[in-house]
Amino acid sequence: MRAVDIIVKKRDGGSLDAAEISFFVEGVTRGTWPDYQATALLMAILLRGMSSEETATLTAAMVGSGVRLDLGAVPGVKVDKHSTGGVGDKTSLVVAPVAAACGVPVPMMSGRGLGHTGGTLDKLESIPGFRVDLSIEDMRAALLAIGCVMIGQTKEIAPADKKLYALRDVTGTVESIPLISASIMSKKIAEGIDALVLDVKTGSGAFMKTEDDSWRLAESLVSIGNASGVRTEAIITRMDAPLGRAVGNANEVIECLEVLKGGGPPDLVEISVELAARMLLLAHVATDRGEAERRVRRAISSGEGLDRFRRIVERQGGDARIVDDYTRLPASPDCHVIKAARRGYIARLDAELIGRASVALGAGRSRVEDAIDPAVGIMVLARPGDIVSEGDGLLELHVRDRARLGDAVALATRAIAIDVAPPPRVPLIVGEVGSTAGEARGR
Amino acid sequence: MRAVDIIVKKRDGGSLDAAEISFFVEGVTRGTWPDYQATALLMAILLRGMSSEETATLTAAMVGSGVRLDLGAVPGVKVDKHSTGGVGDKTSLVVAPVAAACGVPVPMMSGRGLGHTGGTLDKLESIPGFRVDLSIEDMRAALLAIGCVMIGQTKEIAPADKKLYALRDVTGTVESIPLISASIMSKKIAEGIDALVLDVKTGSGAFMKTEDDSWRLAESLVSIGNASGVRTEAIITRMDAPLGRAVGNANEVIECLEVLKGGGPPDLVEISVELAARMLLLAHVATDRGEAERRVRRAISSGEGLDRFRRIVERQGGDARIVDDYTRLPASPDCHVIKAARRGYIARLDAELIGRASVALGAGRSRVEDAIDPAVGIMVLARPGDIVSEGDGLLELHVRDRARLGDAVALATRAIAIDVAPPPRVPLIVGEVGSTAGEARGR
Repeated sequence: MRAVDIIVKKRDGGSLDAAEISFFVEGVTRGTWPDYQATALLMAILLRGMSSEETATLTAAMVGSGVRLDLGAVPGVKVDKHSTGGVGDKTSLVVAPVAAACGVPVPMMSGRGLGHTGGTLDKLESIPGFRVDLSIEDMRAALLAIGCVMIGQTKEIAPADKKLYALRDVTGTVESIPLISASIMSKKIAEGIDALVLDVKTGSGAFMKTEDDSWRLAESLVSIGNASGVRTEAIITRMDAPLGRAVGNANEVIECLEVLKGGGPPDLVEISVELAARMLLLAHVATDRGEAERRVRRAISSGEGLDRFRRIVERQGGDARIVDDYTRLPASPDCHVIKAARRGYIARLDAELIGRASVALGAGRSRVEDAIDPAVGIMVLARPGDIVSEGDGLLELHVRDRARLGDAVALATRAIAIDVAPPPRVPLIVGEVGSTAGEARGR
Repeated sequence: MRAVDIIVKKRDGGSLDAAEISFFVEGVTRGTWPDYQATALLMAILLRGMSSEETATLTAAMVGSGVRLDLGAVPGVKVDKHSTGGVGDKTSLVVAPVAAACGVPVPMMSGRGLGHTGGTLDKLESIPGFRVDLSIEDMRAALLAIGCVMIGQTKEIAPADKKLYALRDVTGTVESIPLISASIMSKKIAEGIDALVLDVKTGSGAFMKTEDDSWRLAESLVSIGNASGVRTEAIITRMDAPLGRAVGNANEVIECLEVLKGGGPPDLVEISVELAARMLLLAHVATDRGEAERRVRRAISSGEGLDRFRRIVERQGGDARIVDDYTRLPASPDCHVIKAARRGYIARLDAELIGRASVALGAGRSRVEDAIDPAVGIMVLARPGDIVSEGDGLLELHVRDRARLGDAVALATRAIAIDVAPPPRVPLIVGEVGSTAGEARGR
């Protein structure tokens, strides 16, 4: 088998078979496929596409490039939640402890922020001492002890993905639904989970800008998960404006703690409850949707979710006193408020631009190797639909290095539109795929 | 400027501007563009295409990666001829000395065979002692002295092409009209010629299998040449069966000598006269087509072309006695004849399969670094349209290593089809592009 023949086959619109896909993935993992052949094939895949069968085969080959964890020693139906990424998208920190408090074992493996989107690991690491790099043994032990563990990908998990992602990032081959699907699902399948809830974001702050693409991605992800023995469902949620009010790292942790204490922004609460309730149903700890949602809300109001979060932090080496004392979290020394230039409704608060403004302040990274500052970020003071008067504060920028403020203010200012009429109200959750509830809704 | 942004632009179907194309070509030449980014862009170019303006810009950037020769010291209008490659395609060895004998200065830079097609340099090197690696100074001196020189690409000529071709060869990105055009024309423009006649092959033994693609390639090549100050025209010729009867190296030299002596196969004579006559017109040594063709035929019948060939061989270190004594050329020790299985017309003699059979015998190379054997090859005993009886010889395989015979016979046998009805007669020359004669014909 020759690499060039496989490239030519895909270039001409053909379907790759399992042997060809394995040859590619193994070659990339072992370094026997030169990078220049891998990237030519990745571009051909992006432009020619892959069938759902090819995508499933690619995913399986990527799982097989590393180990598939065995969590059989942990009783119960293990369920994870994954988001395709957004701005202010912090539901993991609420959903994982709440689902665990309800009796769902949650072995959560997350990623770091890249580009305008944030990442769960970065948020957790803003808690002093918190370690996300547990070994597989420590992960299993923490999951048994606490019912939940929140870590990063270990190197044993889908090593082909790490290599392929690095190449895709620099060759314009990220934006391919088959490649995105295989990247996400290979890591999730290798985790050893039994079920998975996906939050597929759609809109300006998401990787998928259109609802059509988001539906296609959701369907692709759900189909791969189910075909691989991981019961998978997805909701599709709007990501036009940041989720909640906090964008950054330490400030997002605080906002999640507020939700766990029974407060927090309603949009963040809505999606967190939706995702957690689905995890309960998938884990069979609730038998119908009504019961699942009641149990989730009770875990919040009773403080059980908050308590579970505290135990996660303690177990993973973090300073659990942050739960009650936010001053123990990193804080920026400086602050800049962007004010309303005129009276009216907030018609738009563009998530991607707010995300990029936050990166400009140092809260995110443009390149994988960049360092981030957990203290900086943006607080949204006025959300789409709010009425503001001239001079009202719209965005509060938490700053360390004032030299970075200019770019951030320029981006954040472009993100805001004020209009005389209120914007149309759109539902936050626009659809679902693969739910046990039956037919997809909202389409 | 970032490589990934240029890749994304082309991936999404955009046009690259001169700065972006230069950044790419210079980066590839200097090694500052990693190969994995270059190949992703090459695949995006193959699948998305390039406008004629982009292709011209790419060609100019590739010319600029090396030197453009100055042949101003050589009087007259310097004209080269280039073929896109075929099987038994040996016209250069006839056309160059004949045009030179008629007074056209011919600085010919040729390539080596690759895949199923042969190359002029390999054929010339079957002449004992013949050197194709002259320096630019020696090339100029030979051109001044003899009126013709036949050499390989010097390293100063379009170095970007060498690098890009090596990458295209292993990443399925050869078959792109813009990339093929830029590769061919960058080398021709850099030679310092004033005018160029192209023989664009079409059919099974050509790189362009369809007439449509061949027309598009011819138009692309002619447009680039004329835009770069090289008056360029092209003929499109059928390459369904090998040209002439000899396929190999030494045997092709002999066939050309036969043409120069007034004999040889009619198809080879027809195309050689056509190409040479066009060179005379472009060089203004003839004023109309009739005169040009008469002068070419006279240069053959008078022996002036043969004499010029002898002088080229002598000047470039070769044994000119081969002109009169073919036994001084390499000859294979062994021979195998493929015979007709039944009576009928030769309906087909597939050029690509014959080319591949010849490579299997050792006359060509599958990879750039392979060595070739000048003595082996194939003689076509019966051509399409000929009537044969059962047991008549169809192909004579000149063999050195009998272990290679099995593959060669299998390929050559598949190349032949015998039918009860004669095949339709198709013209050898199917069209022309950019001729001073005016409108394209045959379309």
